[in-house]
Amino acid sequence: MSKGTLYLLPITMGEYNMENTIPRGVQELMDSVDIFVVENLKTTRRYLRKVNSTYPIDDKEFFNIDKRTSRKELSQFIHQHKDKTIGVMSEAGCPGIADPGADVVEIAHELKLAVKPLVGPSSILLALIASGKNGQNFTFNGYLPKDRSDRIKTLKNLERLSRSGNTQIFMETPFRNNHMIEDILTHCDNSMKLCIAANITLSNEKICNKTINEWKKESPDYHKDYCIFVL
Amino acid sequence: MSKGTLYLLPITMGEYNMENTIPRGVQELMDSVDIFVVENLKTTRRYLRKVNSTYPIDDKEFFNIDKRTSRKELSQFIHQHKDKTIGVMSEAGCPGIADPGADVVEIAHELKLAVKPLVGPSSILLALIASGKNGQNFTFNGYLPKDRSDRIKTLKNLERLSRSGNTQIFMETPFRNNHMIEDILTHCDNSMKLCIAANITLSNEKICNKTINEWKKESPDYHKDYCIFVL
Repeated sequence: MSKGTLYLLPITMGEYNMENTIPRGVQELMDSVDIFVVENLKTTRRYLRKVNSTYPIDDKEFFNIDKRTSRKELSQFIHQHKDKTIGVMSEAGCPGIADPGADVVEIAHELKLAVKPLVGPSSILLALIASGKNGQNFTFNGYLPKDRSDRIKTLKNLERLSRSGNTQIFMETPFRNNHMIEDILTHCDNSMKLCIAANITLSNEKICNKTINEWKKESPDYHKDYCIFVL
Repeated sequence: MSKGTLYLLPITMGEYNMENTIPRGVQELMDSVDIFVVENLKTTRRYLRKVNSTYPIDDKEFFNIDKRTSRKELSQFIHQHKDKTIGVMSEAGCPGIADPGADVVEIAHELKLAVKPLVGPSSILLALIASGKNGQNFTFNGYLPKDRSDRIKTLKNLERLSRSGNTQIFMETPFRNNHMIEDILTHCDNSMKLCIAANITLSNEKICNKTINEWKKESPDYHKDYCIFVL
């Protein structure tokens, strides 16, 4: 029995601009996948049809992972198919960063499957390099606390770390961006540079890096945009 | 005069496997670049010829950035060409992470150029997602201290941070990998999981994630491999 492979399959960020974000070889490789372990079944099926309108979706098996999927259930599923070619796919970008993909990868390593990460869009990485900030030392913090006083405390800590040379990256849910920006502008130093990378890889992409002082002059509105903040 | 653009151009990791690592649209976009700001002139020229054997290299301008390039010199150059299409390119992978590309980007923001990061291979990101470790919170530390006692102290600190949920990524120069591995196996806890991602995107790519205890049983040899360590 041949050894199985787990491919970490990237997916576009909301528009179907495969030509600019998914290498051709990675698109073609999806033909060889037997089983898709995915965050969102509908997104995956629609994407597969866009990559290749004759993609044999009905010949493939799909496993949907969500918050209710137990580690044991996932482990059993991968174990049953450990001689197959499995593809893990998140809802946007590269799997395994802010989604359940990492669990699938960890199980694959335990079962000694070959783990193959594939090149695709990552808003975190693209925001970092587009910020012009120090890329030799950086931290991704995911979402900051929802509670306002906790969030402000966290922001002040991130500002301190950034000043010491460790670039700080974080995100916010699109409909809370303006609150986040307000907190940053109110509580970080005027001389601090903030990069807001919005809608990365999409047609309305907008990346600005300027001082808090400059941001204050223009009442920025990022309501409902997909933003990555780099401090 | 039209507003200039700075493209962050990715490059393959040592083999010319463009098909799997550089989206077709990104390859084609290089035709529109007027000026290349690069880390290594020879690498860039060779790469451009591989992407397109008839690429009009002689019609383009090149600016080589190295350790001797002053910030002022770089800033003056970008300023002179701020209405042009500029491409910044590192020696391998995406620019702006472990190379002088970040300075170019910072200057471009100051001059209000459009900054466009492009999808390509990043060994740090690919190593992270292929490790199966927590991607919601991670830190890239670049190179650890060369001095052995400082390195061991740093490793113990990274282990502590990793246990608290913050995945730690770092690298080492290829000919020092085995010393690094020896230090990790000697000084980190047996139950700790270490992922070594070697030669990412290359034909001899090898990604293993296992406990220190498991690593100890097989005297790993990564001499001269390109490794990313994920703790």
